[in-house]
Amino acid sequence: MTKKILFINPLHTDVFDEEFRTQFESYKSPETVVDVVSFAGTGPIHVEYNCYEAMVIPELIRTVKKAEEDGYDAAILGCFYDPALRACREVAEKMVVTAPAEAALHIATTLGENFSILVGRKKWIPEMKENVHKYGFAHKLTSFKSLELGVHDFQKDPEETKRRIRAAANEAIKIDGADVIVLGCTGEFGFFESLQEELGVPVIDASCAPFKYAEFLVEVKQKLAWTHSKKVGYQSPPADEVRDFKLFETAEGKI
Amino acid sequence: MTKKILFINPLHTDVFDEEFRTQFESYKSPETVVDVVSFAGTGPIHVEYNCYEAMVIPELIRTVKKAEEDGYDAAILGCFYDPALRACREVAEKMVVTAPAEAALHIATTLGENFSILVGRKKWIPEMKENVHKYGFAHKLTSFKSLELGVHDFQKDPEETKRRIRAAANEAIKIDGADVIVLGCTGEFGFFESLQEELGVPVIDASCAPFKYAEFLVEVKQKLAWTHSKKVGYQSPPADEVRDFKLFETAEGKI
Amino acid sequence: MTKKILFINPLHTDVFDEEFRTQFESYKSPETVVDVVSFAGTGPIHVEYNCYEAMVIPELIRTVKKAEEDGYDAAILGCFYDPALRACREVAEKMVVTAPAEAALHIATTLGENFSILVGRKKWIPEMKENVHKYGFAHKLTSFKSLELGVHDFQKDPEETKRRIRAAANEAIKIDGADVIVLGCTGEFGFFESLQEELGVPVIDASCAPFKYAEFLVEVKQKLAWTHSKKVGYQSPPADEVRDFKLFETAEGKI
Amino acid sequence: MTKKILFINPLHTDVFDEEFRTQFESYKSPETVVDVVSFAGTGPIHVEYNCYEAMVIPELIRTVKKAEEDGYDAAILGCFYDPALRACREVAEKMVVTAPAEAALHIATTLGENFSILVGRKKWIPEMKENVHKYGFAHKLTSFKSLELGVHDFQKDPEETKRRIRAAANEAIKIDGADVIVLGCTGEFGFFESLQEELGVPVIDASCAPFKYAEFLVEVKQKLAWTHSKKVGYQSPPADEVRDFKLFETAEGKI
Amino acid sequence: MTKKILFINPLHTDVFDEEFRTQFESYKSPETVVDVVSFAGTGPIHVEYNCYEAMVIPELIRTVKKAEEDGYDAAILGCFYDPALRACREVAEKMVVTAPAEAALHIATTLGENFSILVGRKKWIPEMKENVHKYGFAHKLTSFKSLELGVHDFQKDPEETKRRIRAAANEAIKIDGADVIVLGCTGEFGFFESLQEELGVPVIDASCAPFKYAEFLVEVKQKLAWTHSKKVGYQSPPADEVRDFKLFETAEGKI
Amino acid sequence: MTKKILFINPLHTDVFDEEFRTQFESYKSPETVVDVVSFAGTGPIHVEYNCYEAMVIPELIRTVKKAEEDGYDAAILGCFYDPALRACREVAEKMVVTAPAEAALHIATTLGENFSILVGRKKWIPEMKENVHKYGFAHKLTSFKSLELGVHDFQKDPEETKRRIRAAANEAIKIDGADVIVLGCTGEFGFFESLQEELGVPVIDASCAPFKYAEFLVEVKQKLAWTHSKKVGYQSPPADEVRDFKLFETAEGKI
Repeated sequence: MTKKILFINPLHTDVFDEEFRTQFESYKSPETVVDVVSFAGTGPIHVEYNCYEAMVIPELIRTVKKAEEDGYDAAILGCFYDPALRACREVAEKMVVTAPAEAALHIATTLGENFSILVGRKKWIPEMKENVHKYGFAHKLTSFKSLELGVHDFQKDPEETKRRIRAAANEAIKIDGADVIVLGCTGEFGFFESLQEELGVPVIDASCAPFKYAEFLVEVKQKLAWTHSKKVGYQSPPADEVRDFKLFETAEGKI
Repeated sequence: MTKKILFINPLHTDVFDEEFRTQFESYKSPETVVDVVSFAGTGPIHVEYNCYEAMVIPELIRTVKKAEEDGYDAAILGCFYDPALRACREVAEKMVVTAPAEAALHIATTLGENFSILVGRKKWIPEMKENVHKYGFAHKLTSFKSLELGVHDFQKDPEETKRRIRAAANEAIKIDGADVIVLGCTGEFGFFESLQEELGVPVIDASCAPFKYAEFLVEVKQKLAWTHSKKVGYQSPPADEVRDFKLFETAEGKI
Repeated sequence: MTKKILFINPLHTDVFDEEFRTQFESYKSPETVVDVVSFAGTGPIHVEYNCYEAMVIPELIRTVKKAEEDGYDAAILGCFYDPALRACREVAEKMVVTAPAEAALHIATTLGENFSILVGRKKWIPEMKENVHKYGFAHKLTSFKSLELGVHDFQKDPEETKRRIRAAANEAIKIDGADVIVLGCTGEFGFFESLQEELGVPVIDASCAPFKYAEFLVEVKQKLAWTHSKKVGYQSPPADEVRDFKLFETAEGKI
Repeated sequence: MTKKILFINPLHTDVFDEEFRTQFESYKSPETVVDVVSFAGTGPIHVEYNCYEAMVIPELIRTVKKAEEDGYDAAILGCFYDPALRACREVAEKMVVTAPAEAALHIATTLGENFSILVGRKKWIPEMKENVHKYGFAHKLTSFKSLELGVHDFQKDPEETKRRIRAAANEAIKIDGADVIVLGCTGEFGFFESLQEELGVPVIDASCAPFKYAEFLVEVKQKLAWTHSKKVGYQSPPADEVRDFKLFETAEGKI
Repeated sequence: MTKKILFINPLHTDVFDEEFRTQFESYKSPETVVDVVSFAGTGPIHVEYNCYEAMVIPELIRTVKKAEEDGYDAAILGCFYDPALRACREVAEKMVVTAPAEAALHIATTLGENFSILVGRKKWIPEMKENVHKYGFAHKLTSFKSLELGVHDFQKDPEETKRRIRAAANEAIKIDGADVIVLGCTGEFGFFESLQEELGVPVIDASCAPFKYAEFLVEVKQKLAWTHSKKVGYQSPPADEVRDFKLFETAEGKI
Repeated sequence: MTKKILFINPLHTDVFDEEFRTQFESYKSPETVVDVVSFAGTGPIHVEYNCYEAMVIPELIRTVKKAEEDGYDAAILGCFYDPALRACREVAEKMVVTAPAEAALHIATTLGENFSILVGRKKWIPEMKENVHKYGFAHKLTSFKSLELGVHDFQKDPEETKRRIRAAANEAIKIDGADVIVLGCTGEFGFFESLQEELGVPVIDASCAPFKYAEFLVEVKQKLAWTHSKKVGYQSPPADEVRDFKLFETAEGKI
C-alpha cells in the first residue's frame, strides 16, 4: 500500500529541498513516495526566531490542508520547533502529521537513556526546552549544546560543522553522560551517519527522524486504523466556519 | 507618566471591543490610556480551534509591531491561549507584552492556594493545560471545568452563563478544593464582580487580569527599567532580515 | 530487506500463541517475518504478580539471547509490565528490543492528548504507573480503569469483556477527558478494532503496538543504523564474564 | 486612591531602613505612601539562619496585625526567605501581603526565560530552593550563585559587592544561560540599576520587587476586589480564639 | 545505650500529654526514656491556623534548645505541619530532630504504594500538601480526606471519630486506590490499632510515627554517627551571635 | 523481642559475607540476630549489569521465601539496584523486606538537604537514577559521581578506594552543594566511618543503611503492627497458583 509523504520545509527558499529529497529517497521504505516542498515568494528563509516561525505558520497550515486534498498520507512540519503541530493535526482530517522534535525525541528515548540536543544558537533553547518538557522527556535530557552556527551555516563548510558537532557530542557524552545525540535543526543534515559511526552512539537526524516516524504512523493508520484522535485536542474545525472565515484563502485566492 | 496600553482582541469581529474598552476605562489607573483593537476583513471571529488561532497570528504580530511604532507601552494578546507570546515579545523591541493566562495565573497563585479554570469547551483544555504546565502552576491547578458554551455564547444569555459559572465554581470550590476561580476566556467578561461577591473567592477575569498586569509591567519598566530580557528567548530579529523577508508586510503593503 | 521479529509471550502456556500469530500476520508489513514463542514446562501461565514476572525473567532473557543467535532483528517482551527491558537490551548486542507499554505509550501520546489505561486488576496499577512515570508520560495519563478480569478471563466471554472495556472507555472519555484508550494487557487482544470504530478514539492494542513499533525500530536500524545505544545503560556484558558466570545456561545445559 | 504600604524589615536593627525608604520614594507610584519599619530591642540583626528567621516571626506577625489596624493596604515581609507568608496572610483580614521571593520570581519569569539567583551564602540555598519549587518556577531556575558575603557585608564595600555580583551574573548568563538575574537578599540594594544596564539583562532587586508587586496587588484589590482568598489556606483565625490565646500580646502588653 | 527522647506537644495545654506518654511507654524500645512536654501559660491550644503555629515557634525552638542542654538525644516537633523543622535542626547541635509528617510519610512510602492523609479540616490541606511535595512523595499521595473535626474534637466522642476515620479510609482505599492510611494530626491518637486491623491496611499514627522514627535516628547516630549534616542547610548559628541576639531568652530571662 | 534479620548478598560468591557479618555485629541492636547469605554454585559474582541482576532474581526470591519459612523477621536485598523489591514484598507474607537504595535515600533525605551518590561505574547511573525518581528524591539528588571501580575493586586497594571516594565526595560537597554522601554499592563497605569524620558530612554506607532500616521496620511491625500493605501492589500471590506454577522450585527440587 503506497504511503505518500510530504516533507514541508517551512522556509521561503528551496535551497535544501533537493538534498532532503535525495536523502529521503535513500532511506525510504519501498512503498513510500516522498515529496519535499518549500514556500514560494519572499519571506523568512530560516525560522530561528519564533516570530519568523509564527509568520510562516499560515502558509504551513495551507500547505498541510492542500497536501490532504492532494492525497498525501502524511505531512511533516520540517522545523525542530515543531511549528503549529496541534493546528496542523486539527486541519488534517485524515492525514497523519508529525514533526522533527516529536519524532527525534520518541526515537532517542527508545534507543538510549539520556540524550543531548545540539542546536545552532542559544536563542533556540528556550522554545525547544519547552517542547522537551511538553513531550515528557525532560528527565532524559542531559544537555543542550550550541554549535554557534545559523541554519544556513551548517552546509557552508561541512567539515567545520562536523568538527563542531563532534566536539559538542563528545562533551555531551563524556561530561554530561549522554548516550544519544539529537541534531536540533533540520539544516544539520548529511552528518549523522559518519558521526554516529565515529562516536559510537546513535546520532538522530532532524529530518530523517520525522520522515521515518511519518512512515510508521501511516503504517499503523493503514493497517490498524490508529490515527490522531479527533475527540479532544485535535478535533477539526467545522466546515462551515472554515468556509465563512475563508480560513485557507490567501490574498491571491483559495489554496 | 502616561501608560499607553493596547488590548488586541485577535478576532475578525469588533462585537466585543466596546465592552472591553468600557470595562478597562472603569478599572484603569489614572495615568493609563487604553485602546482596544480587533481585526478587519474576513477571518475567524473566535479562536476556539488552535488552527484559527494559528491563522490570525501574523495579523496579531503585525498589530503588535504597529502598536510599538504607534508609541504604545504595552500590548495584550487578548485570548486565553496566550497566542504567540514569545514571538510578540521578540517583535516588540521596547514595548511590554502580556496575555490572559499568564497574567491570570500569576495573580491567582498569589491570591490563593488552588485555582480552577472555567473553560467554554473541553476542546480548549489540552492547549491551556500545556500553558499551565509551561508557566509552572500545574501543582496549584485543581481542575478544569467546561461550561459547554462557545466564545460567542457567553453574552447571549448572561443569566444562563452566570448560572453555569456559579454551578461550576461551586463544584470547584466544594469538591476540588479551589479557592480562586479563573475564567478561561476573554469572552466570559462582565461576570466576575457579582460572582466573586456571591462565591466568596476571587474570580479572575481573563481580560481585566492582563490589562492590570500590563499596567504593572509598564510601571516597573518606567520606574526600574525592568522589561523583557533580550538576551536569550525574547531576542529581537535583526532589522535587515526583517526587511529582506518583508516580515511585516501584507498583500496590501507594509503595515 | 527482511525483518525477522520474535514476539515472546513470557508465559508457560501457548494458549495465546496462535491467536497472536494470526493477528500479527494480518497487520504486518510485507517484509516482516514474525514468530511467536512461549515457555515450555511448568511455570506461571500469567504474570499478574510481580513475583511471577520476576521468576520468568531468566527464561525471557535466554529467549532473547537465543533469538539474537537465531538471526532475529527484533524481540518483543510480550507483557505490559515491560519485563526486564533494560536487561534484554544489554543482552541483545545487535537486535532491537521493545515491549508493550513502551510502544503503546509512545504511540498513544503521538496520536492524542490524554490516554487512559484499562487494566485487568487494581493490583497491576502501581507497577504500570511507575512505568508511565519512567517513560515520561505521567502528565498525559488521565486515568487507570480496572476491568476486574484476570489475564485468562479476557477471552473466556469476549462479549462480556467487550462490554466492560466499552463501559470503562466511555467513562475515561466522558469523565476523565481521555482521547486515546490503551489496553493494558496483551491478553486483551481481539477487541481494539471494533471498539475504536464504535468509540471514535484510537484503542491501542498491547500486542499489536509493540509489534508495529518493533518493525519501525528494525526499519530505522536497517536504513539509518539507529539502534540501542551501547554507551551507558544498555552496554552489553563482557563475553568472558557471561561465559564464566554460565549466565545463559540452564539446569539442562546451554541455551 | 491612596495606597499605604508598609515594608517590614524583620531585623532588630534600623541600619537599612532609611535607605529602603529613600529607594522606595524614588520608585513609587504617585498614589503610594510608603513606610519602612524594623524591630526594636535586642534580637537578630540578620536572618541568615532559619532559626533567626523563626525567632522574629511573632514580632513580624504582630507588626502585620498592627499594620492592618493602622490602615495599611499592604505589608511586605522584607526577607528573601519570604518568612511566614501564609501566617501573615491569615492574620491580615483585608490587607494584601507579599514578600521578596514571591514577587521577584513572578516578575523574573514574566520578563525572561531562565533566572539565576545570587545569594550571599550557600547556607541560604536549600530554603530558597524549596521556595522556588513551592512557587512553581523550578524549571526556569538555571542556577544559584553564592557571593560569599553576609547580609551586613553587601553595603560595606559596595564596589567589591558590585564586582562579585557582576562576576556571578556574567557566569550565570554565559555558562548557565540565564537571561534574568535575581538578587537573593534585600540587603543587596543599590546595585540593580547600574548592573542591569551594564549586563544587558534585567536585574531584579529583592526589596523593590515586592514593593512594586505590593502596589500592584493593592491596585487590583482597590479596583477589582481581587485579594487573598479566605476560603482555604489563608482563612483568618476566629476572633475569640485570637483573644483567648492572647495571640498578639507581648510580655509588655497588647500590640 | 539509653535513648532520651522528648516529644514536644507545641500547644499551650497539657490535656494530651498524659495520653501521649502512656502510648509511647507501651510502644517504646527497652532502652528508650521518653518525656512529653507542652507549653505553659496562655497561648494557642491548637495550631490549626498557620499563624498559631508561627506564634508558638519561638517557644518550640527554646524547648528544643533546652532539651539538648538537658541531655535529650532526640526531640519531636509534635504537630503534623512539621513546624520549624529546619530551624530546630540548626539549633540542635547534636540532638536528632524529627516531626510527624516527615516520619509518617517515610514510613508510609516504605510500607505501601499509595497513601491517603486524613485531616481534620480542609484548611489544613495546602500547608500539608506543600510538605508532601517538599519531602518528595507527591506521586504517591492519592488523596486528602477531611474528617471535619478540629484538633480538640477527635477525643470528644471517640466512636464518632472512629466512624469518620473508617468512612474516609474506606473511600480512600476503594475509590482512590490507597493502601496506607496516614492520620494527619497528632490529636487523632488512639485509633490506629483497631482500625488497621479492621481495614487491612497500615494506619500510620501521627505521634507514634515520629516517636519510633526518632528512636531509629538516635540509633543510627549512636551506632554509626549518622546525624543531621551541619554542612549546608542545618548549619548551626555561631554562638556569639546567639548570645548577642539573646536568641533564646524570654521576657522572663534565659531559657 | 528478638529481631532475626537476613542480609542476602545476591552474588554467587561469599567473599564479602564474613565482612558484612562482622560489620553488622558491631552496629546491631541488642535484640537483633543477623545472618548473611550469598548464593552457591556458578553465577554472577557481581551484578553491575542489569542482566546479571535479572538472572539472580529467582534465587533471590527463593532465598526470601525460605527466609520467611525459617522465621526471619526481615530480609535485605543486598544490592544498590534494589533488585526485585516489589516481587520480594509480594512473596514475603509477613516478613519485612528492604534494600540499600531505599534505606540509604530515606536516611540521607532525613539527615541533609542534598545528597550525592558515589557509584563505581557510569554504567550503573541510569538504573539508579530511575530508582531515585521512583522513591521521590530526584529534587534532592545533587549529582552522581563515578569512582571508576568495579564491585570487586573496592576492597583490592582500600587506600586507593578511599582516596577516590574522598576526592569525589569533596567535589560533590564543594561544587555540587551536597551535604550527605551516599555510597552507591554494598561493596564500598568499610569506608564510611573514617571518611565522614574527615569530610564532616554523613557518609551513608549501602549495607549498614538497609540493615539498620530493617531493624527499624521490624521494630514498628512488632510494636505497632505496621508492615507492608497487602492491599494493592504488595499483595501476595494465591497459594494454589504458587504450587501449580512450582514457583519456588528449582531443577534440584523444592526450596
